[in-house]
Amino acid sequence: MNERAIVYRKMNGFSDDWGTAVNVQAMVFGNMGDECATGVAFTRNPATGEHIFFGEYLINAQGEDVVAGIRTPQQITLAGSRKWAEDHNVSEEDRKAKYPSLEEYMPEVYENLCNIYKKLELHYHDMQDIEFTIENRKLWMLQTRNGKRTAAAAVRIAVEMVDEGLISKDDAIMRVTPDQINQLLHPQFIKEEKKKASLFTKGLPASPGAATGQIVFDADDAAAWRAEGKGTILVRLETSPEDITGMVAANGILTGRGGMTSHAAVVARGMGKCCVSGAGELVIDAAAKTVAVKGTVLKEGDWISIDGGTGEVLLGKVATEEPKLDGDFETLMRWADNRRVLKIRTNADTPKDAATARRFGAEGIGLCRTEHMFFEGERIKAIREMILADDLEGRKTALAKLIEHQKNDFLGIFEEMRGLPVTVRLLDPPLHEFLPSEPKQITEMAEAMHTSEEKIYKKIAELHEINPMLGFRGCRLGNIYPEITEMQTRAIVEATCELTQKGVKVFPEIMIPLVGKHEEFEYQEKIVRETAEKVFAEKGINVEFMVGTMIEVPRGALTADEIAEHAEFFSFGTNDLTQMCLGYSRDDAGKFIKDYLAKKILAVDPFQSIDQDGVGQLVEIAAKRGRKTRPNIKLGVCGEHGGDPASIDFFHRCGLNYVSCSPYRVPIARLAAAQAAINNDVVREIKQTVEDAYSKAESAAKDAYSKAESGLKNLKETLENSEELKKGVEGAKKLFGDIKNKFKKD
Amino acid sequence: MNERAIVYRKMNGFSDDWGTAVNVQAMVFGNMGDECATGVAFTRNPATGEHIFFGEYLINAQGEDVVAGIRTPQQITLAGSRKWAEDHNVSEEDRKAKYPSLEEYMPEVYENLCNIYKKLELHYHDMQDIEFTIENRKLWMLQTRNGKRTAAAAVRIAVEMVDEGLISKDDAIMRVTPDQINQLLHPQFIKEEKKKASLFTKGLPASPGAATGQIVFDADDAAAWRAEGKGTILVRLETSPEDITGMVAANGILTGRGGMTSHAAVVARGMGKCCVSGAGELVIDAAAKTVAVKGTVLKEGDWISIDGGTGEVLLGKVATEEPKLDGDFETLMRWADNRRVLKIRTNADTPKDAATARRFGAEGIGLCRTEHMFFEGERIKAIREMILADDLEGRKTALAKLIEHQKNDFLGIFEEMRGLPVTVRLLDPPLHEFLPSEPKQITEMAEAMHTSEEKIYKKIAELHEINPMLGFRGCRLGNIYPEITEMQTRAIVEATCELTQKGVKVFPEIMIPLVGKHEEFEYQEKIVRETAEKVFAEKGINVEFMVGTMIEVPRGALTADEIAEHAEFFSFGTNDLTQMCLGYSRDDAGKFIKDYLAKKILAVDPFQSIDQDGVGQLVEIAAKRGRKTRPNIKLGVCGEHGGDPASIDFFHRCGLNYVSCSPYRVPIARLAAAQAAINNDVVREIKQTVEDAYSKAESAAKDAYSKAESGLKNLKETLENSEELKKGVEGAKKLFGDIKNKFKKD
Repeated sequence: MNERAIVYRKMNGFSDDWGTAVNVQAMVFGNMGDECATGVAFTRNPATGEHIFFGEYLINAQGEDVVAGIRTPQQITLAGSRKWAEDHNVSEEDRKAKYPSLEEYMPEVYENLCNIYKKLELHYHDMQDIEFTIENRKLWMLQTRNGKRTAAAAVRIAVEMVDEGLISKDDAIMRVTPDQINQLLHPQFIKEEKKKASLFTKGLPASPGAATGQIVFDADDAAAWRAEGKGTILVRLETSPEDITGMVAANGILTGRGGMTSHAAVVARGMGKCCVSGAGELVIDAAAKTVAVKGTVLKEGDWISIDGGTGEVLLGKVATEEPKLDGDFETLMRWADNRRVLKIRTNADTPKDAATARRFGAEGIGLCRTEHMFFEGERIKAIREMILADDLEGRKTALAKLIEHQKNDFLGIFEEMRGLPVTVRLLDPPLHEFLPSEPKQITEMAEAMHTSEEKIYKKIAELHEINPMLGFRGCRLGNIYPEITEMQTRAIVEATCELTQKGVKVFPEIMIPLVGKHEEFEYQEKIVRETAEKVFAEKGINVEFMVGTMIEVPRGALTADEIAEHAEFFSFGTNDLTQMCLGYSRDDAGKFIKDYLAKKILAVDPFQSIDQDGVGQLVEIAAKRGRKTRPNIKLGVCGEHGGDPASIDFFHRCGLNYVSCSPYRVPIARLAAAQAAINNDVVREIKQTVEDAYSKAESAAKDAYSKAESGLKNLKETLENSEELKKGVEGAKKLFGDIKNKFKKD
Repeated sequence: MNERAIVYRKMNGFSDDWGTAVNVQAMVFGNMGDECATGVAFTRNPATGEHIFFGEYLINAQGEDVVAGIRTPQQITLAGSRKWAEDHNVSEEDRKAKYPSLEEYMPEVYENLCNIYKKLELHYHDMQDIEFTIENRKLWMLQTRNGKRTAAAAVRIAVEMVDEGLISKDDAIMRVTPDQINQLLHPQFIKEEKKKASLFTKGLPASPGAATGQIVFDADDAAAWRAEGKGTILVRLETSPEDITGMVAANGILTGRGGMTSHAAVVARGMGKCCVSGAGELVIDAAAKTVAVKGTVLKEGDWISIDGGTGEVLLGKVATEEPKLDGDFETLMRWADNRRVLKIRTNADTPKDAATARRFGAEGIGLCRTEHMFFEGERIKAIREMILADDLEGRKTALAKLIEHQKNDFLGIFEEMRGLPVTVRLLDPPLHEFLPSEPKQITEMAEAMHTSEEKIYKKIAELHEINPMLGFRGCRLGNIYPEITEMQTRAIVEATCELTQKGVKVFPEIMIPLVGKHEEFEYQEKIVRETAEKVFAEKGINVEFMVGTMIEVPRGALTADEIAEHAEFFSFGTNDLTQMCLGYSRDDAGKFIKDYLAKKILAVDPFQSIDQDGVGQLVEIAAKRGRKTRPNIKLGVCGEHGGDPASIDFFHRCGLNYVSCSPYRVPIARLAAAQAAINNDVVREIKQTVEDAYSKAESAAKDAYSKAESGLKNLKETLENSEELKKGVEGAKKLFGDIKNKFKKD
């Protein structure tokens, strides 16, 4: 129950209740002279995934000396040792004399070790992290376990092991966590920017990625600065398990001592955190809070950048860019795509976002928020004019100014997503969000709009709500002001007609937000369909489109059967559904959620991963009732949970058609959906087995029945030919008749 | 579809879709000379319910002349005529000559009319409102219908008709609407206050009750003044259906012309609105907006008071008091109490409210809100001190100042409710509600508490929430600050122990608000039980108490099975459940609910009557799942819906144990609960019939089976004794064996 154990468990999602086992075992010693050694090795390179034996050892040392990075360890293989010498400007002569590889130093032990590591990998079907000690030239294996690896290594190892016939494609998909995909998508330094930066020093490329931050020298400081929103690089001579909190908080880790298997390197790789280890030139004065290399002195708060892929440490901030994803990644994702059942869409409001998401494999837009389009330049003026208008005419005049802008937005997005469905949500937020709040802005707005400040203040007061989350928003806007729905529908349908006429395939899905009663939906749907008909007549073309709704109000979920009478699709707005089902305002609940997590009243933040037992019930109810009314209803999820692996597993089990998430989470969702399919195939297999058994039993029963039938037929024929039996049967018949008559009398 | 029809339908809750029928019929004439007449009569007095024939007629007139009140009508009965003359200072001579009763004027027609009205009442088993015309001494009945009546009359007629053997007790219960009970509970003038007031004039006691308001002369003005929050008395020469909107808006109605059956009188009685009609002394100048009686001139905006029970019109405001409820009322309520299944509790936070509710028949307190106790004098200071405290010690010091106050409150309430259960809800509202918002108040608070304004402003900012409804409130307070729960529990349990030691029976039910997860409940329950144990040890006595929760968060309803593992009772907080299930902030939704009702998206305001299809599902789910875990769990409703008749019917059908409402609605709820029981007995009867049929069929089947069995037994015995059959059976056995062997081979 010490802090380091608690932080480690929290980081890995282990419950504090599970307990810890203790092993009692005999000792062997690696520190009884030069015939002894100790080492740590990986059966493949844990940083890159390359299929080479990779490890370090120390002569006359204990295992913890290697892990702690107190002495610079030697390489196990000759090839590794030569590369190391080259990197460290050590001559071949010196290397052989001072830093020989184990392959050279104890060839027979090395051969033994090689046989064992191959056997272990073959047995476990996974890359192994092994620890060994040599006591007087006798090899003792201390431990083997599946090795921690970088995301890139995880992908490469998984794909190569399939090629080697070691594991199946399903195994490969399960070997990479969605979190690791997230790491792969992390930015890298922009090459040109990096070239401009000055090199401070170089260390080992312990955990890839790029990180920029302000220097801190203490793990607690890293945590404190993070709490203030500052990104840091934690600079330490070496790290120990006590530093875990700070390592989680820092953007990156830089150590002066320790190899690729040091504590800093192993832990950082596990976290997917950028790390440069063993930068031996660093002179760190933790007390004075300075770090120097040859006279260049940096102090706490100075900016540095580290490249975990090369080991470079650069002065100042260096701009980053998106990573290029390699062939193994593409291969694995292709396998995942073939395996998953859920479609993956994206939440995108601009052609740019749509393009990014499509590049990441999105199969449509699940949520295109139209209100974001209202904030730019001319548009905000028009929407404000609409809000300030005193009557319908005034609102219509203002909306007329918006329609061209809206249409152009849709032309751009639809074209980018050609051939794929795009769900457009009609105006959703409370109108006050479009008005300024600062006096200065209000004065400016009054001037720009040739109106009085008083009028604006009055409107702001009028629109003020105690609980805007539960106020005048969603389809309530379009139901009170149908002209907004008309304008938006016109923009969507006109864009669709024009692109269709140009030969671009467009599949718009018009989504009515915040529906709680089927009457609300029908009121909106009527406006949408009537407006569309008008546009069709004007344009001389008919296009297909769907009208559906968000299920985000508990009542909407509970009455989904009624809503599905008219709605062609449901998209679960699990953010709002969580807010209303739990009674947690997302804007306000942060404080008590934190405390609830600490007190274990909550196991997980319900805004990060869907509350399956509560909110999930509403999703299941709505899916079931929606399908009962309309068996082919399209069901999806938009909102943050669409990119969360645990939630994706749940949505797969609910049998939804797709999830939609932000562009950068699309690959994560693709993998998570495949894993959900594999995980839940176990259930399917059990079901299949039962079904198989049932159908076997059924056909056996049919068989037996037909045999019995033919047997009976034979029996009947025989009986018919037997005189004695005939008499008996007649007697029995008579008796039956008597009994029947007796019944009738009674 | 004219305005008057629309308002009338809205007032009576009739849909606009239902349509109106038109009758085409022959005419008879009451205005063809002095051998003709027309009249309106009630088979019992519609104002008091007294069992006397009561009506007015006009010689040589059409029916509408009576209703419109253009001429002062004459009385039908001799007794009525004499009383009228006395009231109007008309000599017996004059009366006979100028205003003879129908009984005197056309005795044979009168006798005929009496026979008919008795037949009609006997036929319809209800008091009739009849219209007739006499054409040349021949009586024509134009119409009969169940007569509108005052609430008092409804009660009296219902009770007396049971005594007369005309209707059953169930019929009597169904004859009085809960709305009428509400009228009976309306205030009356305080006698002493009334004595002090000067009489302006006197009219007819057309619709009982007491009303005070400012004079208006126009129905539209009454509506406009009401919109500004002003209570009015609508003063008119006579009213017509065009005035309905204004009559609804006014506190009371005063007319210068027209009898007890005039438009003003009939409509006001239907509405349960106080009305004085036919005050002939009034000189009304609607254009100048003045009304005068013998030189005393009142103008628009002047205050008057009218007594609908006596016909008095008084100058100025007269204070009112609660009505005394008579024996018939008690009788009817006793019948209702015997008939209903639901218990009726009250929402009360003070001993005074508790006493009122008990007088009205409350069977316990369903909701005692503890926060209301924090606002008085010293207490608000202590609670503010707690909120401003920086640490646990500071909060505990502040809470220590509150505990004696809280305990005294509970001592008072528990004693008032001795022998009955009292549900105490722990602190529920967001803490910012205890802090001031105006700068002046903040300055005062800072002075009073010897702290800086800055600190208060900082705390206000810290506690500010975007959506307080979904924020830091309910059990979240007690879970983050367990010391609040400790203090409140201690106050409740100490009060219970002390009263128990004095021999007062107390049944406290401690209610944890806003529970959405069973963990939240268990966390609070543990604090409550541990604190109670401490108090028991200190006081040397053990008392019984229950710990339960409010079900007001949708998640709480959906996971009621888990929550019921520990919670001993559920109280449905249908206000909040409605807010969250529908996503309607009660504070903000007024605007769009109005529009939704107009557009028929909503059929009824869900805060007035529970949304049975949506929120109702959650109540049903929670009741079912709660009972599955804990079959004897106590289920109730607190919140506005507990006093709404339609909602009460729903809660009865859900099988809840009780509803709780404000003290003045307790009698309404008692009657509504009885009506729900009667209404739903129809359903029960159908179920019973089906069950009866099923059990008959079952026993018939059993009978047939046992007869068949004994028949078969006979058959078997007979067969066993038949040599021929034995041979046949053996042959068959052999054949079977052959077939079996054949199967085995196959």
